[in-house]
Amino acid sequence: MNQVVTFGEAMLRLTPPNYQRLEQTVSLDVTVGGSELNSAIAISRLGMKSAWVSKLTSNPLGRIIANKAREQGVDTSHIVWTKEHRIGLYFLEQGATPRSSRVIYDRKNSAISAIQPNEVNWAEVFKGAKLFHTSGITPALSKSATETTKAAVKAAKAAGLLVSFDMNYRATLWSTDEARQCFTEILPDVDILLTTDEDTNRVFGYEGSYEEIAHKLKDTFGFKIVAITLRQVISVLRGGWSSLALADKLYKSKKRYEMEIIDRVGAGDSFTAGFLFGYLTEGIEKGIAYGDAMSAFKHSMPGDVLWMTEDEVKAQISGEDAKIKR
Amino acid sequence: MNQVVTFGEAMLRLTPPNYQRLEQTVSLDVTVGGSELNSAIAISRLGMKSAWVSKLTSNPLGRIIANKAREQGVDTSHIVWTKEHRIGLYFLEQGATPRSSRVIYDRKNSAISAIQPNEVNWAEVFKGAKLFHTSGITPALSKSATETTKAAVKAAKAAGLLVSFDMNYRATLWSTDEARQCFTEILPDVDILLTTDEDTNRVFGYEGSYEEIAHKLKDTFGFKIVAITLRQVISVLRGGWSSLALADKLYKSKKRYEMEIIDRVGAGDSFTAGFLFGYLTEGIEKGIAYGDAMSAFKHSMPGDVLWMTEDEVKAQISGEDAKIKR
Amino acid sequence: MNQVVTFGEAMLRLTPPNYQRLEQTVSLDVTVGGSELNSAIAISRLGMKSAWVSKLTSNPLGRIIANKAREQGVDTSHIVWTKEHRIGLYFLEQGATPRSSRVIYDRKNSAISAIQPNEVNWAEVFKGAKLFHTSGITPALSKSATETTKAAVKAAKAAGLLVSFDMNYRATLWSTDEARQCFTEILPDVDILLTTDEDTNRVFGYEGSYEEIAHKLKDTFGFKIVAITLRQVISVLRGGWSSLALADKLYKSKKRYEMEIIDRVGAGDSFTAGFLFGYLTEGIEKGIAYGDAMSAFKHSMPGDVLWMTEDEVKAQISGEDAKIKR
Amino acid sequence: MNQVVTFGEAMLRLTPPNYQRLEQTVSLDVTVGGSELNSAIAISRLGMKSAWVSKLTSNPLGRIIANKAREQGVDTSHIVWTKEHRIGLYFLEQGATPRSSRVIYDRKNSAISAIQPNEVNWAEVFKGAKLFHTSGITPALSKSATETTKAAVKAAKAAGLLVSFDMNYRATLWSTDEARQCFTEILPDVDILLTTDEDTNRVFGYEGSYEEIAHKLKDTFGFKIVAITLRQVISVLRGGWSSLALADKLYKSKKRYEMEIIDRVGAGDSFTAGFLFGYLTEGIEKGIAYGDAMSAFKHSMPGDVLWMTEDEVKAQISGEDAKIKR
Amino acid sequence: MNQVVTFGEAMLRLTPPNYQRLEQTVSLDVTVGGSELNSAIAISRLGMKSAWVSKLTSNPLGRIIANKAREQGVDTSHIVWTKEHRIGLYFLEQGATPRSSRVIYDRKNSAISAIQPNEVNWAEVFKGAKLFHTSGITPALSKSATETTKAAVKAAKAAGLLVSFDMNYRATLWSTDEARQCFTEILPDVDILLTTDEDTNRVFGYEGSYEEIAHKLKDTFGFKIVAITLRQVISVLRGGWSSLALADKLYKSKKRYEMEIIDRVGAGDSFTAGFLFGYLTEGIEKGIAYGDAMSAFKHSMPGDVLWMTEDEVKAQISGEDAKIKR
Amino acid sequence: MNQVVTFGEAMLRLTPPNYQRLEQTVSLDVTVGGSELNSAIAISRLGMKSAWVSKLTSNPLGRIIANKAREQGVDTSHIVWTKEHRIGLYFLEQGATPRSSRVIYDRKNSAISAIQPNEVNWAEVFKGAKLFHTSGITPALSKSATETTKAAVKAAKAAGLLVSFDMNYRATLWSTDEARQCFTEILPDVDILLTTDEDTNRVFGYEGSYEEIAHKLKDTFGFKIVAITLRQVISVLRGGWSSLALADKLYKSKKRYEMEIIDRVGAGDSFTAGFLFGYLTEGIEKGIAYGDAMSAFKHSMPGDVLWMTEDEVKAQISGEDAKIKR
Repeated sequence: MNQVVTFGEAMLRLTPPNYQRLEQTVSLDVTVGGSELNSAIAISRLGMKSAWVSKLTSNPLGRIIANKAREQGVDTSHIVWTKEHRIGLYFLEQGATPRSSRVIYDRKNSAISAIQPNEVNWAEVFKGAKLFHTSGITPALSKSATETTKAAVKAAKAAGLLVSFDMNYRATLWSTDEARQCFTEILPDVDILLTTDEDTNRVFGYEGSYEEIAHKLKDTFGFKIVAITLRQVISVLRGGWSSLALADKLYKSKKRYEMEIIDRVGAGDSFTAGFLFGYLTEGIEKGIAYGDAMSAFKHSMPGDVLWMTEDEVKAQISGEDAKIKR
Repeated sequence: MNQVVTFGEAMLRLTPPNYQRLEQTVSLDVTVGGSELNSAIAISRLGMKSAWVSKLTSNPLGRIIANKAREQGVDTSHIVWTKEHRIGLYFLEQGATPRSSRVIYDRKNSAISAIQPNEVNWAEVFKGAKLFHTSGITPALSKSATETTKAAVKAAKAAGLLVSFDMNYRATLWSTDEARQCFTEILPDVDILLTTDEDTNRVFGYEGSYEEIAHKLKDTFGFKIVAITLRQVISVLRGGWSSLALADKLYKSKKRYEMEIIDRVGAGDSFTAGFLFGYLTEGIEKGIAYGDAMSAFKHSMPGDVLWMTEDEVKAQISGEDAKIKR
Repeated sequence: MNQVVTFGEAMLRLTPPNYQRLEQTVSLDVTVGGSELNSAIAISRLGMKSAWVSKLTSNPLGRIIANKAREQGVDTSHIVWTKEHRIGLYFLEQGATPRSSRVIYDRKNSAISAIQPNEVNWAEVFKGAKLFHTSGITPALSKSATETTKAAVKAAKAAGLLVSFDMNYRATLWSTDEARQCFTEILPDVDILLTTDEDTNRVFGYEGSYEEIAHKLKDTFGFKIVAITLRQVISVLRGGWSSLALADKLYKSKKRYEMEIIDRVGAGDSFTAGFLFGYLTEGIEKGIAYGDAMSAFKHSMPGDVLWMTEDEVKAQISGEDAKIKR
Repeated sequence: MNQVVTFGEAMLRLTPPNYQRLEQTVSLDVTVGGSELNSAIAISRLGMKSAWVSKLTSNPLGRIIANKAREQGVDTSHIVWTKEHRIGLYFLEQGATPRSSRVIYDRKNSAISAIQPNEVNWAEVFKGAKLFHTSGITPALSKSATETTKAAVKAAKAAGLLVSFDMNYRATLWSTDEARQCFTEILPDVDILLTTDEDTNRVFGYEGSYEEIAHKLKDTFGFKIVAITLRQVISVLRGGWSSLALADKLYKSKKRYEMEIIDRVGAGDSFTAGFLFGYLTEGIEKGIAYGDAMSAFKHSMPGDVLWMTEDEVKAQISGEDAKIKR
Repeated sequence: MNQVVTFGEAMLRLTPPNYQRLEQTVSLDVTVGGSELNSAIAISRLGMKSAWVSKLTSNPLGRIIANKAREQGVDTSHIVWTKEHRIGLYFLEQGATPRSSRVIYDRKNSAISAIQPNEVNWAEVFKGAKLFHTSGITPALSKSATETTKAAVKAAKAAGLLVSFDMNYRATLWSTDEARQCFTEILPDVDILLTTDEDTNRVFGYEGSYEEIAHKLKDTFGFKIVAITLRQVISVLRGGWSSLALADKLYKSKKRYEMEIIDRVGAGDSFTAGFLFGYLTEGIEKGIAYGDAMSAFKHSMPGDVLWMTEDEVKAQISGEDAKIKR
Repeated sequence: MNQVVTFGEAMLRLTPPNYQRLEQTVSLDVTVGGSELNSAIAISRLGMKSAWVSKLTSNPLGRIIANKAREQGVDTSHIVWTKEHRIGLYFLEQGATPRSSRVIYDRKNSAISAIQPNEVNWAEVFKGAKLFHTSGITPALSKSATETTKAAVKAAKAAGLLVSFDMNYRATLWSTDEARQCFTEILPDVDILLTTDEDTNRVFGYEGSYEEIAHKLKDTFGFKIVAITLRQVISVLRGGWSSLALADKLYKSKKRYEMEIIDRVGAGDSFTAGFLFGYLTEGIEKGIAYGDAMSAFKHSMPGDVLWMTEDEVKAQISGEDAKIKR
């Protein structure tokens, strides 16, 4: 029985090695990434059963993605397979100050963009589960993806699951108007909202302090919990991380992490995983502690996947120093 | 002034290293390939000016392709640039007996598939040129690509150029019926047809000896020259190569090449380049000699591009042995 | 429910790239291999559920192995995890004539060598399964591994499973006397024996034609099926493959495969997988056809794992040629 | 018609990967670099036509260099090709504090060191051009290179071009006395001098503030513009960048860039390119803005070449932040 | 004649490239490392003859280690070779804040752990030597290694050598109680103790300022010299280094080094080498200067080995700046 | 005491990976090679002490070469070090039929080309040695190298050593006339000549069967032994090897080796090493057996160096098969 179910797209990620620009490279590192898969993996690695629902083309590229999910213990039995369409790709250029990192998406007409609401038997998928998670990327992929996302959220509510949603606004997929309109329909069914002040500002025009934004969101949509991640961008290769959550009261990170950034992609999804895991097993305080530790740790390794064990999460929380461990 | 103009698509080619299967790789070698670009490059390297006409998305991936053409001295000033669409990709798996090599195309909705007949000023492009070359892949890309190919051929004839055409049937792009119908419209304007017995058989159902097929093609469409390449597939990693051409009389290879195959992609395009170069500078006999030498040599190096000098072509023709050269 | 259960050791395989000798390399390719895991993976990839039972140290190296099994869909829930001992390693040097390939094992004191008969609940493992497979390597690992292997075979018989056994004699693990003594105890419970004439000769001193050996084995131990693989070693980089099986009658390969060898490790295990899958789904003839195709195909890719789909198995059997496939 | 013509040596650059010392490496990354080629490339990438004049040995190494220039759109038709001599090499060790980066040159007897004044038809080369650029490295290569440089400068003046000169003193090529004597002959014909306080101090013994040095240079040699780049060396992997220029008045950078340094080689040449491009298209203010942005950006990628588009230059100038761009 | 003799284990070090976690890597960089070998190498590179005594398995892995020692000029003629046992391995994960670097040792049952006191003819080994060095790792490997270490120290004293000892406590090899008991027997024969406050605290429970610890150690065991290295851990990728030594008086570093850390392993051993070399050739002040410079420099390159020349040591001491050197 | 002394140049060898052409590569594999060093290494690896005499520039590139010799146990104490000149390089392109492998030398003005007869104290070098070996490459490097070679040969004779000489004609270094004139002076002092019929034909115009050539050489110059290697070039990637020697009688290979060629460079030098080792330890028959086995084995691994043990030589001679060894 899976406790957490996530739904979204995962792509092959193609990265030029050694801080090369995409235009200059002659080889690409191949990994797998996608917001909701990243979270499902990080949750699974902590020992909580998770499933990832998506639609994939049944060719070697599609199998690479499913293999990666399966490798990490994520249930892939609900993936919809098709011989049509294609696997989404994204190219990631790693930068260094003053050159920021860049993503070029090549995900149009991917299999999941053609997903239809009736292709997934959500009732079956949600059997025994506690929480359903998706993000603002999934409905942005296509009209039928929007419909399928809405259907999934409704089905989750119907099945008594908590619904978690990461706003994740992607400007290359749709306009802020389109996003706002869609989110406005989905958010009333959402229990846990995870977001950043930047996304909230772009989509809803909210301004103010983090607390104010959290309150405004909670008040507007009636969330059970609003979690806001606070990424400090010191430079392209250095950063800081903390978060806060508003529920019955305001919760804040007890420590702030400093990061030497090897690869920041997937860090938000790692926070989501840690927050949900912590919340489901104990409560919001643990959610923040796990989410922060996991997000900060993610920055230290290449790829979207958080290769971390729960022992390592605990060590981070209890303040592991920077000395070599033998 | 370019002497040869070619028209078609080039893609990023992504190849798993070391005979890995695509599904198992964690990195991909990035090169550039496309039938008509490959030929333009091989011609340019022999010192004959060539241009390649195509349509590319103006992002780093599109620039990689144009850079490669330019690097090899090919005139890229007639490429149509767009901010829309995408760059075509193809994944190549190198095999070893009993596993044949495989290509997975991901070229749908590429920039050139959206090309429109009026986007290229063919009269301008053909100024001073002697020969226009394209292949059966270009019209197969989309309806507007079919129209543009036809327009290009007509314009070439109008400008007094020789028209060369490689039949290159691609089953993943269209049916044999579609191909036959299209080719039947184009071929009457073609002077030089390059093909294989396999493609002729699939598209036109021709059977018989190579000579018979050549005669049938020449009689049906009124070609000036029909060149047929004879690839002997000994195993995945070993092959033989020769060719014949029918014009005023039948010309045959004076030697047959044996190949230890490192990468066979682009070999046919190298034959085309050598044949056209030889024919334009001297005649059919030289065309066959250059075409064979260049095609055989192509098998010995990775990538679609034939990295060869004319001195090396001559050395092959005069029978260079297999000893190390210091 | 798993249909096939295998039991044995898997190791990290460390291979110098590009035909380097181990002594000269500065990097090692990391893959995972082990006879019974290799077979479980190849079976799982064909869509038949399989489980692999083993004992692993719970550190990153142990997780690499379990991840690989899981990635390929193999059930890893019966693995025994420990904080003690170590993960076995093997170093593989790829040769070229006249230098044969070499393996250096570094597997002493690995976790599975410390396995105890009572650490696996075989009754639970075998629920719903049809066949149990192990090889002569597993009991050779240690005394307690011998005991556990015997217990597993007994439990499999008790649960009504077919028992399959690959003789796989490893001279670095024990003497032929030790092997013979152990096998003599185990083989009476075995239904399907897979072996080579070389192993049979070394362990039991059998000589004669393949058929004679098969008959002698069948008569002595009362096997339901004896399958003998016939590997022709043409050179280090070229080989041939066929097989035969003796059951109610003698079955022989309908075709012989020629191979250009990229990596021959795991080919025998791929035969085993194909043979068992074919036999379980249809019968011995299909077993031989699948076993041969899968073993031959394995030679064409690096690593122990057979990255193959059932469509590809069928294409091999129906005689796919060596031409590139687009 | 080329607007800018540069003249100088380019070499193969051989770099040990991953901060290895040269003595410990077993592979070398191959790129192309040379001060005047670097500038010609960066100018060409902004859409301004440029040519690079040099002398190369016609072997694969020489072709690598010409290919790279051509790939970037630089006119290579004025390169002098020879079968004699060799291609210059330089080995670059990337350091990390407290180990500074090191260059070992192996450029003696390179083709360009044998260049003769009459080998280039400068009148032809300069047709339609606006500016000629070279650096203090070119005359330092040999006596005949000194003569050819002087001839080029004279021809440029005669043809009505602006002459730009980067002092670039190289202690491994000649003494400060030799350099001063040579520069003293060349500089009176120079319109735009680009330099650093360090080089000015070593060659001319000038001391004082940057402004004082600029004034002294301008007064002594009658330059139209003196541009001085101000590199702040924070550590081996961190730096800051700004510049100033003295012409009709003193111009200063409006912002200072901070850099996380991936590879600092070619940054000065990128400044030159940006400064000249900005100056030629608008004026000194734009020259400084472009030069600074391009130099700072260069630090963020491996190799001598600045892989940058004009859109990216503009984004830097308008203050792009360090966040990932999707 | 060797001036310095060291004794200990060296292992193959297997490192995932590019900050990957061990669990995610598919290749491992192979280098050689071991505290006493590292020091012997760094001493040899300065021109002082050194020998390294150890026990190795005579297979390719063992030869890799001996080759590396020999490559660096270290006398390997006293190594004890065996066909038994195995070569120790260690896996190193390079971290980035907040993930510290990690070592997984796989060194149990290595050849040297089976060394016997009578396998080395210490009298022969020490002929003409001035100093014997080992560390707290060697006796920790096994009981017979403890005995052999003690025998070596006794033999060194008997032969009139100085004895140098780096405390190097390794918690994965033995408990602090075991270490303390063993060290208490060995230290009275030691002339030069090299340690950190962390190790002293863990083994002997000493607390206080560095000077107090140095005094306590000197007073308790009667050392001639106590050298304490002061590593400042700013972050995983940044650090500071200085040291002090107590002998007739207290000596302190004249400068503190800042490091951008590429690889910190072997830095302590480099200090040891520099300190001993400086002390033996001139005195403690030079020892500190060389030790600090060498340790700081070590951080800037991958691998355990310090690839440095004496000219470079001197340049560091005299304050080489961070600018590129051409 | 070294038993064998060799004298000649070693270079850095720079090889594009994966059968790439030099012009297309972006990285080069770095190894070390040089005929006489290759032989000294192969002899040392068999346990016979050898020294290599040369002249090297004292920079990281020179140290790479000396490190490699030292790594393999070769005595490097007689190398002449200089701060002048440069390290010779050679670029090796690995071919595949019909493209032969190619070498581009960049060795002009290397340190050894400036060697002077009085820079080596040959009397000291030859103390206790049995045999001196050099090749026709060494005198070809420069006039002073010719003089030094002659002086070395005279000194060897004077010291009572056997003199061995590999004719090794290099057309890029000198004309056949120059070579013949030089060899005619040197050969009368040579005891053991190693050569091929091709070199003999090019330099001396000898024709006829191998036996006839051997007799003609022996009669003309009075050699004690003439050894001729017979390399069969089947294709670029396949070959055969045997040899013969004429002394008191004619000796021929007892077996002929077939090779799958990974890298054929250094194979002749490996024959030399095996022949000299066999001859010095037992006689000509063993010389041929060792020489053939070692040369054939060399083809199976990358680089000039023969990574082989004497056990492996013996296994080859006794007919090791092509099966994997575990």
